[in-house]
This record gives sequence, C-alpha cells and structure tokens, in this order.
Amino acid sequence: MKKVAVILSGSGVFDGSELYETVISLLAIRRAGAHYECFAPDKDQLHVVNHLSGEVAEGEKRNVLVESARLARGEIKPVTECDPEAFDALIIPGGFGAAKNLCTFAVDGAESQPDEDVLNVCKAFAQSGKPAGYACIAPALAASVYGNKVKLTIGNDESTAQGLEELGAQHVECAVDEIVVDSDRKLVTTPAYMLAEDILEAEAGLNKMVETVLSMQ
Amino acid sequence: MKKVAVILSGSGVFDGSELYETVISLLAIRRAGAHYECFAPDKDQLHVVNHLSGEVAEGEKRNVLVESARLARGEIKPVTECDPEAFDALIIPGGFGAAKNLCTFAVDGAESQPDEDVLNVCKAFAQSGKPAGYACIAPALAASVYGNKVKLTIGNDESTAQGLEELGAQHVECAVDEIVVDSDRKLVTTPAYMLAEDILEAEAGLNKMVETVLSMQ
Repeated sequence: MKKVAVILSGSGVFDGSELYETVISLLAIRRAGAHYECFAPDKDQLHVVNHLSGEVAEGEKRNVLVESARLARGEIKPVTECDPEAFDALIIPGGFGAAKNLCTFAVDGAESQPDEDVLNVCKAFAQSGKPAGYACIAPALAASVYGNKVKLTIGNDESTAQGLEELGAQHVECAVDEIVVDSDRKLVTTPAYMLAEDILEAEAGLNKMVETVLSMQ
Repeated sequence: MKKVAVILSGSGVFDGSELYETVISLLAIRRAGAHYECFAPDKDQLHVVNHLSGEVAEGEKRNVLVESARLARGEIKPVTECDPEAFDALIIPGGFGAAKNLCTFAVDGAESQPDEDVLNVCKAFAQSGKPAGYACIAPALAASVYGNKVKLTIGNDESTAQGLEELGAQHVECAVDEIVVDSDRKLVTTPAYMLAEDILEAEAGLNKMVETVLSMQ
C-alpha cells in the first residue's frame, strides 16, 4: 500500500492551505487505496488574514503547524520529522500559504526563497525519483525545488508564469480540469483554484493529479 | 436548480465545523447539480482549541463567522441574513462547533440551549416542510429544533444518545456509512465523524445524507 506525505501551509485559502484542495486531495489519495500523513513547518505564518473581510489581521499571530492541524484533525507532525524514505510520493495543495509560508513567492516573486526545512524534504523526494503533485500556486515552490526547466503549470496567469520561469521553470498553460506532467522529474501540477470557479472544477484536476502521481513507479 | 443553505460553526473539528464533513457535503451538493450558500452566527466561539495539542487556548478569542469564512473561501453571510424562503433545503455539518457554537449541547447536555438566530432559521425550514440534513453531532441541535420524538442518529454513543432523548428526540442507532430518515419531518442524519475512522467512511454517509435531502420534495 502506497504512503503519501502531504505538506500543509496553514488552514485557509488566503494565509494557509486551500481547504477544498486539501480535502479533495486527501479523498483522492484514500480512494486510490493509498494512505497519507500530514506535515507542516513549525513556525509563525507570514500573516493572518481575516477571511470574511480579506484584510490582514494586524498584530495577530498564528503558527503554521498548529493551524494546519485543523486540516488534519490533529494528526500532523513538523515537516522536519518527514522522512522521505518512508513515503512513495509527495502532495502539496495550494492556497496562498504555499506561496507565503512554504516559500516567499507571494512577496518576493522571482526572488522567492523556499523554507529551508520544506525545501530539504521536497528535494529529497525529487532526488530519489519519487513522484510529486503540486497544486494551484504550490508550483511556485516546485520551481525552486526542481529548477532546470522543469515543466509545470499555474494555469494561465502571465505575470505569475513569468515569475516561475525566472525561477528556472518552464511554464505550460493548462485548463482547470487538466494536469501538466514532467515525466522525467515525475512532477504533476494542476491549476485548481488558480482558475477554478467552482469546487467541482477544482476536483476534476486534483483527482487527475493525485491519480497520476500514484500511478507513477 | 435547487438552492441549499449551509450553516457553519467555525473551522476545525474541535471548536468549529469539521472540515472534511463540510467539504464533502459541499461537493455532494454541487455534484447533485444544486447550489449552496454558507451562513454562520456572528459571535465569539465558545473557545479556541489548539488542534495540535488538543488543549483550549486560554485567552484567545475567535469569531464564528470570521473563522467559518475559511471554509467558504470568504463567501459567507451572518445567519441572521439567511432567508429560508430563498432555499430548498438546509445542511448542517458536524464538528464540535455544532454543539458549542450553534447550541450548548457539548457543555449543557440535556439542558442544551440553541443559539437563538440559528434556531429561528432551522425552525423556519422545519415548519415550512423543507428537508434538512444534520451530520455528526449536529443532530444535538436538531433535537431542539424538532423535538416531539423526531427520529435521528449520532451513531451509537449511549450517553450522547440519552442526552438527545432527554431533549425530546428518538435516537436510532446507525452505521457510519448509513443515514436515518424521519420522513414526516424530512430530517436526514448520519453519524459521520461520530463513528468514522477514515475520510472515506465519513464520505459514504454524508453523500447519502445530501443525496436523500435533495431528492425530497
């Protein structure tokens, strides 16, 4: 039975992992007969966003691991405890947290710096030839992990795509219900809520992403 | 096209709406071709629980509507703005928030008091004969809404079931992947994470709940 590591970045589309993308990915992993374990960096979020007003909650602090635990029903560990050798594949859902807490793409664009602990884990999966799926804006992290003209997608937003190319990736336009596969790197990406206007649209691409990752040897 | 009102109670199993139950319910609504709108009470949560440690975060305050907005990607309104006449059905996911913020069952048991604004909306659905689905521990609220020996389930926990009977309901044992239907009241309930040990188990019952609610005239 395959085991999948899932790296989360908080709990909420504007400052953490996108909830629908995460839950849909977990469902797809279990439906494929695989199991998952969740991980997140143990550090403060870049900021806290009031999801009703869309405004940054000035002065409020929340921890990425503690908030990610909401998406894992408490069953989650610090990303430093993720041993890639114990897993067959890696999945990273989107949400702004992927570009705020797992790397700094949302703030620094082409100067994006990945979180060091997250980068170590992601690189270990990449270097051991294990498949990975990055959804939505999480490919901004994948660009730093793989570089070297890795093929990936964030949908069709031109300035975001340009930022990823400056980080060393090769961006490929992609419809919301489709995936982009870099077969050599075993990297699968899908636009999800970079394009989705509905939870069903996001589900279609995410299901393909997870199924493709889990079908790779 | 049917419209469903969904009442949330925060964002996290221990102090709000259970995330998996909510997302699975929203997916099931859309898959059935219906649309949803989300609502939540605009008030402080009973408390905030650190989902990593399981401990109450002393002194921390969060607002039910603001946190529920994380589960609705910001698209949510105060429950006082929910006009039952504009909807065909009501869905209330579980999570401890349903028994802490929508009513006080988690604290007061058989003396549970429903939130007044939530009760008004739920009663309007009940009195106009519109179908409703309550998952997990949310039937604790349904007992106060319907009373009068309404048939419902929270799975098979004896002391919880006894509390619901003292509130006027008739508890029926139910497997995790099944539902209990009170045809007269058009109330559908499923145990979900009162019993589920896996997201797929929860999904099976929740899908049946939503499909049955939406099939009722």
